[in-house]
Amino acid sequence: MLKIQPLKGMKDYLPDETALREYALNTIHEVYRRHGFSRITTPMLEEIGNLTGSECGDNLNLIFKVLKRGDKLSETLASGRTEALADMGLRYDLTLPLARFYAANRHLLPLPFKVIQMDRAFRAERPQKGRMREFMQCDIDIIGDDSIHAETELIHVTAKALSALGFENFIVLVNDRRLLNGLLVSFGFSQESLPALCLAIDKADKIGVEGVRAELVQKGHNHEAVDALCEFLFRDNLTPENAADRLADKASAESLVCIIRDVHALAGDKYRVAYHPSLVRGQGYYTGAVFEIICPSFSGSIAGGGRYDGMIGKFTGQAIPAVGFSIGFERVCALLSEKGFATSAPVKIAVLYREEHDFAYVLKKADDLAQHHTVTVFRQAKKLSKQLETLEAMGFASVAFADREEIKVLGRYNASEKTTPPAHGTAYIK
Amino acid sequence: MLKIQPLKGMKDYLPDETALREYALNTIHEVYRRHGFSRITTPMLEEIGNLTGSECGDNLNLIFKVLKRGDKLSETLASGRTEALADMGLRYDLTLPLARFYAANRHLLPLPFKVIQMDRAFRAERPQKGRMREFMQCDIDIIGDDSIHAETELIHVTAKALSALGFENFIVLVNDRRLLNGLLVSFGFSQESLPALCLAIDKADKIGVEGVRAELVQKGHNHEAVDALCEFLFRDNLTPENAADRLADKASAESLVCIIRDVHALAGDKYRVAYHPSLVRGQGYYTGAVFEIICPSFSGSIAGGGRYDGMIGKFTGQAIPAVGFSIGFERVCALLSEKGFATSAPVKIAVLYREEHDFAYVLKKADDLAQHHTVTVFRQAKKLSKQLETLEAMGFASVAFADREEIKVLGRYNASEKTTPPAHGTAYIK
Repeated sequence: MLKIQPLKGMKDYLPDETALREYALNTIHEVYRRHGFSRITTPMLEEIGNLTGSECGDNLNLIFKVLKRGDKLSETLASGRTEALADMGLRYDLTLPLARFYAANRHLLPLPFKVIQMDRAFRAERPQKGRMREFMQCDIDIIGDDSIHAETELIHVTAKALSALGFENFIVLVNDRRLLNGLLVSFGFSQESLPALCLAIDKADKIGVEGVRAELVQKGHNHEAVDALCEFLFRDNLTPENAADRLADKASAESLVCIIRDVHALAGDKYRVAYHPSLVRGQGYYTGAVFEIICPSFSGSIAGGGRYDGMIGKFTGQAIPAVGFSIGFERVCALLSEKGFATSAPVKIAVLYREEHDFAYVLKKADDLAQHHTVTVFRQAKKLSKQLETLEAMGFASVAFADREEIKVLGRYNASEKTTPPAHGTAYIK
Repeated sequence: MLKIQPLKGMKDYLPDETALREYALNTIHEVYRRHGFSRITTPMLEEIGNLTGSECGDNLNLIFKVLKRGDKLSETLASGRTEALADMGLRYDLTLPLARFYAANRHLLPLPFKVIQMDRAFRAERPQKGRMREFMQCDIDIIGDDSIHAETELIHVTAKALSALGFENFIVLVNDRRLLNGLLVSFGFSQESLPALCLAIDKADKIGVEGVRAELVQKGHNHEAVDALCEFLFRDNLTPENAADRLADKASAESLVCIIRDVHALAGDKYRVAYHPSLVRGQGYYTGAVFEIICPSFSGSIAGGGRYDGMIGKFTGQAIPAVGFSIGFERVCALLSEKGFATSAPVKIAVLYREEHDFAYVLKKADDLAQHHTVTVFRQAKKLSKQLETLEAMGFASVAFADREEIKVLGRYNASEKTTPPAHGTAYIK
């Protein structure tokens, strides 16, 4: 017997769940599109060397690798090079494929290129707390704009998409990797220790400030430097201006101030924006501003992104500025589902036929109704009243019979149980 | 340097190509939906045993297998069981995942269950003649209806979807595996030889009748039996009734006659339906009717399907009738693209700003316009006339300036180059 459950960390979506996902996807897409972003599509699979050579931080260990095939597999097995068994892998995000796409197609693309990706990615995470191994992301990116207007525009459009889905009172947190790195150096930490330091700081939301402090000390960092850093970084009222006081180069702090000022002006009273000095975002490829959106009702972020000016250059040999923002679609859908989302499905009519009817005629009758309604045909059951109950439970508003003129409106939609035609579509009954 | 081309047999889709794909997908989806089918979603990955244990014919050799991870990989490598290096694989079609989905969720689903799947599948084919290794399929299936009405309905709705995309004069070819098997036995071939015989017969479109004849003789089949079979099966005017004359059990031929009669009545003069006695369809899991749609302008089918009453039972232990029809989305898009498809994009407006402008104000101005148009902001270039040409080439109909009232209609859209507001949206200019 074959296994009936989906693989762990992956999910089947029933019709109602799929309808919610489609609604959310279409809503987000429409906002992105209206603001002049264009959608592209890239393959799920990438060359293994592209995936492993791209500063993806923790994701490096989470790649689903695809086994070589045929002679190449035999050769690799014979050679004993077991680290070379895979030649491709499932992408862990949409940013790396975008960078490759841009490098391959840049002669065909406008500059700046404002791009939408809404598609699946895969990470071999230990399944936990609703973390999926297969998940959708909805990304917008601006390639070829080195000004902070790109950051502001992405935050603005992403916030619009979330608002269109009914999200309110969310908070956009912003930081800048250069500012954070500058601060770390100003507290006496070495340049080489910065990536590991950032990884530890990034965990503050999970393990708390004390946890970060303990981890850093345990890793051999100077106790006093760690204390001073944590006190500074995790205090409540730190502003970019305060942070900049410790640095000679104040450019990154000034950029942050501008982004926050503009986003604040755009947000009105719909959402908030705040400097979050310890925000890191996991990816190793971020080079400047980083940002995420959190929701008061949900632990963890519902969107995240940042500037990655170095990545496309890895494909082209020439640096091209880029910045992206990604909506965590699975979390958004989980929240919509908790709020009790219901699709406003168009009126559904069931056309019942019996064995002796001309089936081509039955389908033609259904077609005529389908111009204005969702219509489907079913064989009439022996126990009609039971079948009508089932159809009603399935969301059918009314029933037509292959050999009769009228349409019967089902009880739930018509308390008096009269046999009356619905407002629309009567002209289409033969 | 990382590799910039997509993996072989996989493709990047540019904005225009993605727009065509979205249009085709939405058009097909809308037809399916109106006829009472509901969409589900299943994971791209399946348990390796499900993929290899499911009578998938040639596809068995085309599975992209995913390498085990962590300790399980080490253990397998240490044990030398190199055939067990993979624990999951990318699906090669949407039918197997549907059967698993139905088995897992049947207590939550109506009977009959009319279901839509529009999603990607993967096959490690040798890349050739536009055969993709990653491709979209658009499937409808009816589960739990053992009558031939299910076949007729699927053919009807699939034909409607193709018509909605502008396809005309296509031909629906139908056959029945039981009828074909009965014919083969009636010519003296053994029950055990049927699968291999069918594989050879299936190639007739590629290698010709003589090729089939040669292959069968070469495989050691009786020369006279092969000649008699080929003469019968590939003659021009064979009808299901003629075929049934050779068989004791005429049920499958009678079913075919009914399907053809009903589909013919539904087709009118839009498309044709014909008995194709040598039609096999590659999958090993088909148990009854099989069908495909061919297009005069295209060699190869643009849709294919059939009845697979045995597959769901492999998951549940209890046979459940099922029939499906799948549109070959990649071929359909290739044909649409050849026909010169153009999306009717909504009017696009570019809002140009300069460095000194308040960027939050610029985005607000764009938002107001975005209620009626696709709007995007760009920094104003030093050479404005050159920038306007570029914007026009990108499909922008007009340009607004952050600090001016009017909207400039671009040359291509207004031969007289007057600076006039477009018909809509003027009320939204500040």
